[in-house]
Amino acid sequence: MKSAVFIEPGKVEVQDVDMPKIEKDDDVILKVVRTCVCGSDLWSYRGLDEYKKKAYNNGHEALGVVETVGKDITTLQPGDFVIVPFTHGCGHCAACLAGYDGSCLNHSDNFTQSAQAEYLRAQHGEWSLVKVPGKPEDYSDEMLDSLLALSDVMATGYHAARTADVQKGDTAVVIGDGAVGLCGVISAKLRGAKQIIAMSRHEDRQKLAKEFGATDIIAERGDEAVKKVMELTHGNGADAVLECVGTELSTQTALDVARPGAKVGRVGLPHSGNLDIVTPFGKNIALAGGIASVTTYDRQELLDAVLSGAIHPGKVFTGKYKLADINQAYKDMAERNTIKATVVND
Amino acid sequence: MKSAVFIEPGKVEVQDVDMPKIEKDDDVILKVVRTCVCGSDLWSYRGLDEYKKKAYNNGHEALGVVETVGKDITTLQPGDFVIVPFTHGCGHCAACLAGYDGSCLNHSDNFTQSAQAEYLRAQHGEWSLVKVPGKPEDYSDEMLDSLLALSDVMATGYHAARTADVQKGDTAVVIGDGAVGLCGVISAKLRGAKQIIAMSRHEDRQKLAKEFGATDIIAERGDEAVKKVMELTHGNGADAVLECVGTELSTQTALDVARPGAKVGRVGLPHSGNLDIVTPFGKNIALAGGIASVTTYDRQELLDAVLSGAIHPGKVFTGKYKLADINQAYKDMAERNTIKATVVND
Repeated sequence: MKSAVFIEPGKVEVQDVDMPKIEKDDDVILKVVRTCVCGSDLWSYRGLDEYKKKAYNNGHEALGVVETVGKDITTLQPGDFVIVPFTHGCGHCAACLAGYDGSCLNHSDNFTQSAQAEYLRAQHGEWSLVKVPGKPEDYSDEMLDSLLALSDVMATGYHAARTADVQKGDTAVVIGDGAVGLCGVISAKLRGAKQIIAMSRHEDRQKLAKEFGATDIIAERGDEAVKKVMELTHGNGADAVLECVGTELSTQTALDVARPGAKVGRVGLPHSGNLDIVTPFGKNIALAGGIASVTTYDRQELLDAVLSGAIHPGKVFTGKYKLADINQAYKDMAERNTIKATVVND
Repeated sequence: MKSAVFIEPGKVEVQDVDMPKIEKDDDVILKVVRTCVCGSDLWSYRGLDEYKKKAYNNGHEALGVVETVGKDITTLQPGDFVIVPFTHGCGHCAACLAGYDGSCLNHSDNFTQSAQAEYLRAQHGEWSLVKVPGKPEDYSDEMLDSLLALSDVMATGYHAARTADVQKGDTAVVIGDGAVGLCGVISAKLRGAKQIIAMSRHEDRQKLAKEFGATDIIAERGDEAVKKVMELTHGNGADAVLECVGTELSTQTALDVARPGAKVGRVGLPHSGNLDIVTPFGKNIALAGGIASVTTYDRQELLDAVLSGAIHPGKVFTGKYKLADINQAYKDMAERNTIKATVVND
């Protein structure tokens, strides 16, 4: 089968590789319907230090149709249409039972191949895969994009809002205007925030943030951005902060714009960085978040919200590619010509 | 009037000082009934670097009887018996309204004198002071100690449990066996924790922790302590962690013993230290907590729990002193001959 393979920074190729096989009794082999490129896939493409020689977890979002199932699978059968959460929690450990399947205690193996391929081996398939009614051909292109967003970015933005504990009537700040930050705006709105302040410097993303429910846009960064948030919140700071970047600076900004007692829900994967433990203590700020609970959220609320048309996270996909053109998909995202790239298999 | 005055490390003296006066319209002058020594008062007594030359906020816990009130005070009158929360929130800023009066946005002035004195000027008296029914002489010595604990340590232990979000049936770990840690055990029990693992190395404190509801005691520290918690929790870690020390090591231990998705409620005042922001992300651990919401908790639940005899936090006071013997009170606490020292005025 064909699969994307990371060669070196700036170069991803499609190569012929072995078909994935059932290796464990709760594995499921899927025919990939559509997949996409994640912001974290760009770390190796851009040549970030620790990802220069080897891509880690590149291609981890997909919609698929079940091809074959392992012996233990009772919830799915060949032909079923599913969302493939990048988290694939087991569903029965203490973390999954507490609603944190992104930190599944049996989650040691992760994807062993890229989802940017024709077929995919999904692990912990019995619980983790989220069944979608009908067949892919029953859905519009827009709806398929929105369903695809449920494999990662929409659930990740929602995780920021949930761990920041956005409540009805709140003022929420969303830091980061990538696909996840934009889905954070959708999530803050979905949870009833009244004022949603999005930090964004790019016109196309500002526009989408507003369409998704942002009431205010801040283009500044650092201290200037903090000042603006304070002006917009009568000097109090935000009730909830969604941190969707993951750098030391963005984490610090998140703490600075939070009002005393607020929670920062962070989903921007931090590469490195330290936090002074004294500052958040004085303000009683909770620093929460981590890897999203994708399966949990999709089942609880997000799949219904997408199917009913209440939310349209698929709009973050602004470029469409064939698997053969995967390098262009990476390139366009890396150069910010597209917010997020969908890869559609024939 | 007489007041404790910090002279130098190892030396606190009683001196004659000016009587406090009403300075603002929401001030209240109180006759101090009993006060006590806080673990943080010992920073200057022990000669910790930044507190060597000047004590900061020494003596900040008290029970008092209202002597005179400022013009704006409508909730209290002379003769009223009150708990004096060390936090004295204003009650109407965004932080107080959100239930975080320990991070009150109008809390710029703090105590301007020691509560280890005959009289005390309390600020934001209209909202912050907690009225106790009757007069001091209506209560037993034990009950007065428990009421005194509501001015800081009991509410602070409760803040750890609340921000760690201890739920019914949870396994909670309490790090620290000072008065606050011991009140953390009471609080975890009050909120319905089923298993309460207390970290303590001192026999008298281990005994009190068990009396307060601890089901397990761990005397080890660092990695050995983490190993023991994992053994006691079937490898999952704790559902909630109360961090009542405030060092970099204790904060790290708190993160290490937490199960994925758990919250760490920290109330140990951190002097300094950094937290690697990557580790808690992977486990979805929330680091919460800060200065307690003393007035809020006393009114919500704690005063009733003390008056009904449901909890007995006054047991943390294991030494009783007169104001004239204040140096001995500090010395005995510093040498761990007493867990917490009460100072009773005649």
